[in-house]
Amino acid sequence: MQLFHNSHDTAYRMPFGAAATGSKVKLALKIISDTQPDAVKIRLWENEEEIFYDMAPKNSRENQEQSLSSSGSENTAENEFYYTATVPMPEKEGLVWYYFIVETGGKAVYYINNNDSLGGVGQTQTEPANNSFQITVYDKDYKTPDWFKGQIMYQIFTDRFFGDHSDTNGVIPKKRNEYIIHSDWYEPISFNAHPFEMGPACNDFYGGNLNGIIDKLKYLKSLGVGVIYLNPIFDAYSNHKYDTADYMNIDPMFGTNEKFTALCDEAEKLGIRVILDGVFSHTGADSIYFNKYGNYGNNTGAYKNPQSQYKEWYQFTNYPNYESWWGCSNLPNVNEMTPSYLDYILRDEDSVIKTWLKRGASGWRLDVADELPDEFIKILRREVKKQDPDAVIIGEVWEDASNKVSYSIRREYLLGKELDSVMNYPFKDNMIAFLLGNIDAECLNAHFMSIFENYPKETLYSLMNIIGTHDTMRIKTLLGGLSQDCGTQKLSSGNEELATYRLKMLSFVQMTFVGVPCIYYGDEVGMQGGSDPFNRGTYPWRAIDPDLRQWYTDLGALRNNSDCLTLGYYKTVYASGDLYIYARFTKNGKNAFGNCCKNSLAICAVNRSFESKHIDIDISEFGDFSFFSHGISNPEIVPVRDSIIEIDVAPVGCEFFISADKF
Amino acid sequence: MQLFHNSHDTAYRMPFGAAATGSKVKLALKIISDTQPDAVKIRLWENEEEIFYDMAPKNSRENQEQSLSSSGSENTAENEFYYTATVPMPEKEGLVWYYFIVETGGKAVYYINNNDSLGGVGQTQTEPANNSFQITVYDKDYKTPDWFKGQIMYQIFTDRFFGDHSDTNGVIPKKRNEYIIHSDWYEPISFNAHPFEMGPACNDFYGGNLNGIIDKLKYLKSLGVGVIYLNPIFDAYSNHKYDTADYMNIDPMFGTNEKFTALCDEAEKLGIRVILDGVFSHTGADSIYFNKYGNYGNNTGAYKNPQSQYKEWYQFTNYPNYESWWGCSNLPNVNEMTPSYLDYILRDEDSVIKTWLKRGASGWRLDVADELPDEFIKILRREVKKQDPDAVIIGEVWEDASNKVSYSIRREYLLGKELDSVMNYPFKDNMIAFLLGNIDAECLNAHFMSIFENYPKETLYSLMNIIGTHDTMRIKTLLGGLSQDCGTQKLSSGNEELATYRLKMLSFVQMTFVGVPCIYYGDEVGMQGGSDPFNRGTYPWRAIDPDLRQWYTDLGALRNNSDCLTLGYYKTVYASGDLYIYARFTKNGKNAFGNCCKNSLAICAVNRSFESKHIDIDISEFGDFSFFSHGISNPEIVPVRDSIIEIDVAPVGCEFFISADKF
Repeated sequence: MQLFHNSHDTAYRMPFGAAATGSKVKLALKIISDTQPDAVKIRLWENEEEIFYDMAPKNSRENQEQSLSSSGSENTAENEFYYTATVPMPEKEGLVWYYFIVETGGKAVYYINNNDSLGGVGQTQTEPANNSFQITVYDKDYKTPDWFKGQIMYQIFTDRFFGDHSDTNGVIPKKRNEYIIHSDWYEPISFNAHPFEMGPACNDFYGGNLNGIIDKLKYLKSLGVGVIYLNPIFDAYSNHKYDTADYMNIDPMFGTNEKFTALCDEAEKLGIRVILDGVFSHTGADSIYFNKYGNYGNNTGAYKNPQSQYKEWYQFTNYPNYESWWGCSNLPNVNEMTPSYLDYILRDEDSVIKTWLKRGASGWRLDVADELPDEFIKILRREVKKQDPDAVIIGEVWEDASNKVSYSIRREYLLGKELDSVMNYPFKDNMIAFLLGNIDAECLNAHFMSIFENYPKETLYSLMNIIGTHDTMRIKTLLGGLSQDCGTQKLSSGNEELATYRLKMLSFVQMTFVGVPCIYYGDEVGMQGGSDPFNRGTYPWRAIDPDLRQWYTDLGALRNNSDCLTLGYYKTVYASGDLYIYARFTKNGKNAFGNCCKNSLAICAVNRSFESKHIDIDISEFGDFSFFSHGISNPEIVPVRDSIIEIDVAPVGCEFFISADKF
Repeated sequence: MQLFHNSHDTAYRMPFGAAATGSKVKLALKIISDTQPDAVKIRLWENEEEIFYDMAPKNSRENQEQSLSSSGSENTAENEFYYTATVPMPEKEGLVWYYFIVETGGKAVYYINNNDSLGGVGQTQTEPANNSFQITVYDKDYKTPDWFKGQIMYQIFTDRFFGDHSDTNGVIPKKRNEYIIHSDWYEPISFNAHPFEMGPACNDFYGGNLNGIIDKLKYLKSLGVGVIYLNPIFDAYSNHKYDTADYMNIDPMFGTNEKFTALCDEAEKLGIRVILDGVFSHTGADSIYFNKYGNYGNNTGAYKNPQSQYKEWYQFTNYPNYESWWGCSNLPNVNEMTPSYLDYILRDEDSVIKTWLKRGASGWRLDVADELPDEFIKILRREVKKQDPDAVIIGEVWEDASNKVSYSIRREYLLGKELDSVMNYPFKDNMIAFLLGNIDAECLNAHFMSIFENYPKETLYSLMNIIGTHDTMRIKTLLGGLSQDCGTQKLSSGNEELATYRLKMLSFVQMTFVGVPCIYYGDEVGMQGGSDPFNRGTYPWRAIDPDLRQWYTDLGALRNNSDCLTLGYYKTVYASGDLYIYARFTKNGKNAFGNCCKNSLAICAVNRSFESKHIDIDISEFGDFSFFSHGISNPEIVPVRDSIIEIDVAPVGCEFFISADKF
C-alpha cells in the first residue's frame, strides 16, 4: 500500500498555508492499494487535545468535489483511492498538527511529515509518531500595516554610517573620558585599539550620527528605500547601545530628541519611514535605572539604592547580586511583567513606545524577542496599535517563528496578537547554503515552501528578508568563502570577484522575493568583515564598488515599479541542482491581496554553478504575455513566442524577465 | 632623452639569461634624443669591483652588427641611437650587475633595473643607483643530471601515504610507549589528540610505511611519475623525522634498510627513482649523537657525555646548554664544518650520503639549504657526484635562489658548484597570487621571466616546480579562498568546486611548464587542509576525487609523451589581465638541449576570470603546423588554417593545443 499527501499542493491541502481561526481546511490523502482500506482518518492535535476525523473516498456522498483543486489528481488509476475531509480550524489561534491513519484488516499505517518537518511530501510509517504536518491558525483579524508590505528596508548602525558635526563646529562630542574617538573615519576596526571587556570592544566611536543620516536620505531614496531600521540610538555606554541607559533620550553623541524628529520629518518628505530598535529584555548596568557605577547620582538606581523605584524591575538574587543577559554583567535582565516596567515601557500615555511613535517613529524592531514573555509582546502590540495602527512590530527570531519553542514554551509570535514580522534568518541561511553549494535548489525550495506554508500571508509580505545584520559576518565575506574566524581578513581579489557575483545573485533573489528586503548598510557597496566588531565598519564613502551599488539601485527601481514583485503571488518554477527559478505574478488583474493592478509576470532565475545553464520555461499558466523586458541594468524588450521563455543563465549568474508592452 | 633596454629581449641582451664563465654577452641600449650623446657606457659590478665598458653607436666601426638579434630594432628613426657593447663574463662564477650611463654636455643619466628588480624593461634615473640588472655567471662545466630534467616528481610523507603491515601480521609497530597510534586511517588530524610540544603535535602515527609505498608504485606510474621524493625516513622521534636520531638507519616504524633498497629496486623496474630528504643543519636532541634523554645509552652522545665523539658537532654555549634550530630545543644545531661531521655525513667512503646512494637512492633534497654553509654544499656536491654523477641535489630555498642572501652572505647555490635544483617557491607563490586575483598575468609573467633569466638552463629544466608541500597549506584549500588559520575547516561545496577548477588550471600550468613538476601526495585527489599538521592528512584512498585524479593522469601522459613539454623551449605568447598563454616548442628538429626530436608545438592558455575569453593566436613564428590535438582528457584533432589558433577559454578554465598529425 502506498500513501501520498503533499501539503504544498492544493490538490491535497486547500487553501495553501496558514489558516484563519474558524476557517475550514480541506485535506486529501491518495492511497494506492489493491483493496480499499477499512477506514481512513485524520488525527489532529490542537489545544492539547487529540481529535479524529473520518475521511471519505472520492465519489462518495460526503465528497462530491472529486479533488480539492483544479490542479489536482483528477485521473485516478483503478487501484488509486482518494480520500478527503474538511477540517474546521479552532476558534482560538494556535498550531494544529495533523497526520493520517489508514486501517486495513485490523492493521494501521500512518502518513506523517517528513524527517525535516518541512511540510510538502511526507512519509509512510507503521508506528504513530509525533512528526505531524503543521497548520498555523492565526487570529482571523490579524492584519499587518499595508504601507510596510513589500517595502525596501535599510539597516543603519548609526555610529558607522555617516557623521555630520556641523552642529558642533565639526567636533565629535565625547560623552565619557575613556571613550576612544577615531580621528580617521577610514581607520580599520581593531580589537587592539581599545580595552576588551564584556564581549567585543564597544567603547570606540567614529562619529556617525542622526545628522549624518539626514544628509544621506537622498542616497537611500536612490536605492528605493522606503523604511530605515536604526540599531539602538538611545543614551547608552557602548557604541552599539544595546545597553540602554535612558529609554527616553537620544544618545548625545548621536543627536537630540528634536534631531530624531527632524530625521523622521525629512525622511517622510521622501516617502521613507523610520523604525527603532527596542531593547526591553535588559537595560544597561550603567543606566539611570540600574546605576551600577554611580554615573547617574550617588543614591539613585536599583543597584545603588534598594529603595529605588526601579529595584523591582530587576532580578536580584542576593542584593546587590543580580541576573544578567547571557551572563553579561553590564546587561542586567529585567522582569518584563513588573507592572511599573509595563507602565513605563508600554502602558503609560507617555510610555517609551508611545513617546517615540509620537516623536516620529513608525514602528519597533524587538531585540531578542525570545527573551520577552508572550504576554509582554501582546500588551506591546495593543499599546503600539492604540497609539498608531500603522506602526509595525518586528521580532528578532532566528528560526521559523511560527513554531519556535524558547525556554520550553511554544511561542505565539505570528498568531495575530504579537508580531507583524520577524527577521527572516531562514531566508538568509538557506540562500547562503545554496550559493555556497551546501544545499541544492530542491532543498532550498523545500525550506522556502515551509516558511510560505507556516507563516500567515500578512506576515509573509512583511517579512524582513535579511542577508546580513550587525550580528552576522558581512555577507560578501561569507560568500567569498571565508568563515567565522576571519576578523579583518580580506578576500583575495579572485574570491572577491566570485563573492560579488554571488552577492548579486543573492540581492537579486532578495529584491524579487515575497517580503521586505533589508539592506545592511554598506553591503550594497561591497563591505567586507568578519564577526562582531568587524561587521560594523564605517561606510566606505570614498571607496565603494560603484558597479554593485548600481546593481542595487537598479534592483530597487525594478522592485518598486513592479506590482508583481512587491505584492504579487509567488510560485517556484524550477528547483533542482544548481538552478533555482521562480515566478512572481499578479492574476486576473489583482495582486495577492486582491487589489486591482495591471497583470504582470516576472521570471527570476539564479544559477550558482560555474557552468552556464539553458532552460525553457513554459509561462502559459500565468497568462498571455508576448513581450518581456529582459535583464536588470540595461534591459531590452524581447518577444516571447508560444509562451516559452528561453533562459540562458551565466555561470554564477542570474537572469530576469518581466512582462512588458511592446514599445 | 628617452632610454630603453629590455634584458628579456635578445635585441638588447644576447644570449638571453644566465651566462657561462668566460662567455660573452652583448648588451644594447636604445636612446631617443635630438642630439647624439657624448658617451654611453656600461657600468659593471663583478667580484666586488667596478668596471666600465664604452658602448658604440650602430654603424660605427666597432659595431657592424647593427642589432644583436634578428628580432631587434633594425629600423631606427632619425633621432634614435642604438648603442651596443660586447662584455666578457668573468672566468670565476658569480653575479655580474650592470646598468647604463649616458653622458651629454657634462651631465649623466642612468638606465637601471626596475623597482621590483625583475629584469626586463628598466627605468631612467638621474642618480647612480644600486638597482642593477643581474647576469648570473655559472661555471661553464655546470651540468645537472639529464635523467632528472623534465620528470614528474611525487612527494611522499611516509606515515600518511599508505601502510602495509603484512610483514608484522597487520600490526603497526609502536617504537615508543607514549606514541599515539591511530587505529583508524581515516581519523582526522587533530591538535587535541595528543600533547602539544615544540610545534605542532608530532608523535601520532597512522602507520604509513615503505611497504605501503611499494604497494602503490603502480599507481604512481599511472600518474606518469618518474621520481619519488620522500620526506625524511631515518630513525627519529617525530612523525615528520626532521629530528634525525640515526642517519644510517630507516625508522623501524617505516621499515628496514633492506626494505628501502627493495623500494628503490621495485621503483626502478617501473622507471621511477627515489630521492631522500637530507637534514644536515641539525639532528634530533633524542638521537644517538646528542642523546639528551638517555634513550641511546646512559653515557653516550654529546649531551650526556662531554667526552662523546659527537660533542664537537654541536654548539654548546655553556655545557650542557646548546644552540638549536630556530629555538626548537629538540633540534640542536650542528657545526656543519666540523671535520668529523663532514667525514661522517659527506666524505667517508661509507658516509651518510654515499651509503644511501649505494642503498638505492638517486639523490638528495637538502633541508633548509640557507642554514648550510656554501662550502658544506660544495663538498656535498663533490662527494655525491663522486659516488654517482647522476645523483641529483635539490635545495630547499624559498626565494629566487640565484641572488639569495642569507645571514648577510650572497649564496652560490646555482653557480654550478652546489645545487642542481631548488624547490621553486616563486612558481607556486606567483601562480597562486595570479589564480586568486592578487596579481595579473603581466605581473605573473614578469616573475616567471625573472626566474628564467636568472637561473642557468641546467637548473631551469630541473627546477622542482611545487604547488604545495608538507610546509604549506593544502593547495586546494588555499585556492578555495581559505587562509592560514583554517585548520581542519573544509571548503563549502561551491568554493570546493571553484578550488578544483583553479587546481586544474594550476596543475595544467605545472605539468606543461619548464622544469620538474612535483605532486604533493593527495593533491591529485583533492585533499584539503590548513597549515601543519593539517596539511599532512592521510591519503584518502576510499574517498578520492576521481575526476581530478583522471585529470592528473591525463596531464602526466600528455607531458611524458611530448618532447616540447619536457625539454622544449618556452615562450610567453600573451600575458595580460586574467589571461596567460604560452608556447612550448622544439625548433629545427631539436629540443632546448640540441637533441634531435620531432618538431612540435604546444599552446597552453589559462583564464582565471569568471567570464570566457576568446583570442586568436598567430603561431607562424613556431613553424608550419596544420593539425592540432585540442583538449586534455578527450582530445580531438582540429585543423588550423593560416597559422591562427582560435582559442576560447572557459571561465576559470584552461585550453590546450598540441601539434598533431592528421589521422
